[in-house]
Amino acid sequence: MSNPNYLPLATGPRLRHSPFFDATCRYGCRIYSVYNHMLLPLYYQSPEADFWRLVNNVTVWDVAGERQVEITGPDAARFSQLLTPRNISNCDVGQCKYVLITAENGGIINDPLLLKLAKNHFWLSLADSDVLLWTKGVAAFAGMDVHIREPDVSPIQIQGPKSPKVMTAIFGDWVQELRYFRFRELDHDGIPLLISRTGWSGERGYEIFLRDGSFGDTLWERVMEAGRAYGIGPAGPSTIRRIEAGMLSYGADMTLEENPFEIGLGRLVDLDQPVDFIGKAALREIAKKGVSRRLVGVQIEGEPLSPNRQFWPVLDVEGGSIGRISSCVWSPRLKRNIALGIVKVGHDRIGTRLEIDTGGTIRRATVVETPFYDPKKEIVKGS
Amino acid sequence: MSNPNYLPLATGPRLRHSPFFDATCRYGCRIYSVYNHMLLPLYYQSPEADFWRLVNNVTVWDVAGERQVEITGPDAARFSQLLTPRNISNCDVGQCKYVLITAENGGIINDPLLLKLAKNHFWLSLADSDVLLWTKGVAAFAGMDVHIREPDVSPIQIQGPKSPKVMTAIFGDWVQELRYFRFRELDHDGIPLLISRTGWSGERGYEIFLRDGSFGDTLWERVMEAGRAYGIGPAGPSTIRRIEAGMLSYGADMTLEENPFEIGLGRLVDLDQPVDFIGKAALREIAKKGVSRRLVGVQIEGEPLSPNRQFWPVLDVEGGSIGRISSCVWSPRLKRNIALGIVKVGHDRIGTRLEIDTGGTIRRATVVETPFYDPKKEIVKGS
Repeated sequence: MSNPNYLPLATGPRLRHSPFFDATCRYGCRIYSVYNHMLLPLYYQSPEADFWRLVNNVTVWDVAGERQVEITGPDAARFSQLLTPRNISNCDVGQCKYVLITAENGGIINDPLLLKLAKNHFWLSLADSDVLLWTKGVAAFAGMDVHIREPDVSPIQIQGPKSPKVMTAIFGDWVQELRYFRFRELDHDGIPLLISRTGWSGERGYEIFLRDGSFGDTLWERVMEAGRAYGIGPAGPSTIRRIEAGMLSYGADMTLEENPFEIGLGRLVDLDQPVDFIGKAALREIAKKGVSRRLVGVQIEGEPLSPNRQFWPVLDVEGGSIGRISSCVWSPRLKRNIALGIVKVGHDRIGTRLEIDTGGTIRRATVVETPFYDPKKEIVKGS
Repeated sequence: MSNPNYLPLATGPRLRHSPFFDATCRYGCRIYSVYNHMLLPLYYQSPEADFWRLVNNVTVWDVAGERQVEITGPDAARFSQLLTPRNISNCDVGQCKYVLITAENGGIINDPLLLKLAKNHFWLSLADSDVLLWTKGVAAFAGMDVHIREPDVSPIQIQGPKSPKVMTAIFGDWVQELRYFRFRELDHDGIPLLISRTGWSGERGYEIFLRDGSFGDTLWERVMEAGRAYGIGPAGPSTIRRIEAGMLSYGADMTLEENPFEIGLGRLVDLDQPVDFIGKAALREIAKKGVSRRLVGVQIEGEPLSPNRQFWPVLDVEGGSIGRISSCVWSPRLKRNIALGIVKVGHDRIGTRLEIDTGGTIRRATVVETPFYDPKKEIVKGS
């Protein structure tokens, strides 16, 4: 506990336990976070060792903290469209979409994965905010016939280049045919599941949504057993890998204070659709006026930095405050400090020189392209 | 870290830092929780040592995690009444009320302190759930003219029998005239504050709501300096003291799955008021039908127990499941294990014998009255 990035956390029933909690303890989880009022296992061996296992082999993550909001009822499709600027009218049953949930002013409430289980049956697989309360609040006076609840659904992620082999070994050859952002519901030896080809790693991967928490231990051990031949190991969401991929973390890289255009996700906003989704008027105005700050990739010079515990001020070369770094990590693969942050427009062009206050020490930095690493091209972009 | 009640927590900007965070580190905080996405300091010396300081002298708590939802605008009073079953029409400006926020089905969303700053200006000082999202969601289609935000307001609590002396030393004699659940706004040497006679300790105490986070360190040190003569020390919400007082913790003793009648807070529901607050129809139905389970105080026999990390099953004397313990602690003053839990009606009468599965080991227990300890009477009730 000498590393100040880790603090002793008192547990208790207010911080919920995932159905895989006992398994993650047995497998030696060493560091946790809290996500949607639930303990979220992060690291087992070390952030770096877990990262290498993810990119070279395959890992299993307890991400039950990614709770689901389930929307059903005669108006479920209409209601779901009300919640998001993304046009989901073309979403098939069995398809997932990455969506933003926006407030009246266009601020971002969450960036869940939306799953369409039936014409009027949706899940929002959440980042860390109480979207259950948001959606129930909206429904209170929306005048629509919907039923909203948090079902007994807990995802694990199987991520890494050997994940198709593990998944095929357990569930059969059909997994290899599962297209990106598609899912299938199934009963596996009496365990109710939904399997999607999605994940938060930048690597090939799958999510297994367990639909009955009492099978948590059984499912975990089945995955571990099938994965042994492929070097599987337990891990958690990899800060290194997701920043390499330029993927955003809600609550850090985006919050209620940011809108989709500021964080470079304008492609998820369809202002031309007929539905007046929540935030449409504000987002139309923002689209017209343009934004005053933008999310960028940043490369920070010098020795390896510990991940930022708080936001780090971004300064221009004269020392004036022009933004903040929200996520920073040392990439052992790229051998450099890579970061995401929001800066004033005018300082967001590739190649702009910045200075970062990394907690008292100023480091020089440069705006670079994201993703920092693209496995398809096996080249380092933005370098 | 050998105590399994504590786990290593990875920090990062997604877990916000309070304006008092640096001070709490300097003063040696050893154990944290996470509350409204913010680090909440819990223990400095030890749970027991901090408890004795609270009940004998005076303590200061960083409870900035009790974030505020601010409701303003022409319809703020009407909107606020819509949110809670408690009749707040008689709430004065300068007065606080303990209220429940309920969902359409009567389930509890939060149990904040409501503060009325002006005719149409309210704060909800929150327990641990995103009520900002709930209220913004409700407002989306409520058709009322309100503005809702989380202001830069961070409370500390000054709790313990010597708190009036410390508060008087800092702010003057008027503090002694401040009535229970009343507050005053003031500027103290340029620091904008709101001071209320409230708290979550069961002891005499105050909350100081800091209205500009940049003064966090200044305010903390001023309190410490004034309190030195009275044996002040840093502490956090005391699980021992609040269970002794029979005070409930949201997320454990009550959740969205419980309604006000089940947890013994029916007095906070006014079904006769004219306003159709959210949940009224459901709560009227529940009031008519009666509840099937109830929150009770429980005394658990045997050696000191560590606080429960999860809910503990409650069994009847034949071993059947009849409820759960949500909060349990060993009281060093009462020298017994005291607990709160919800049991099926029929097992809720004082004196009922129960068995508790305390994580594999069964203990005998008895339903007893709460509060377990009443300082006014200096007697042990329910024994």
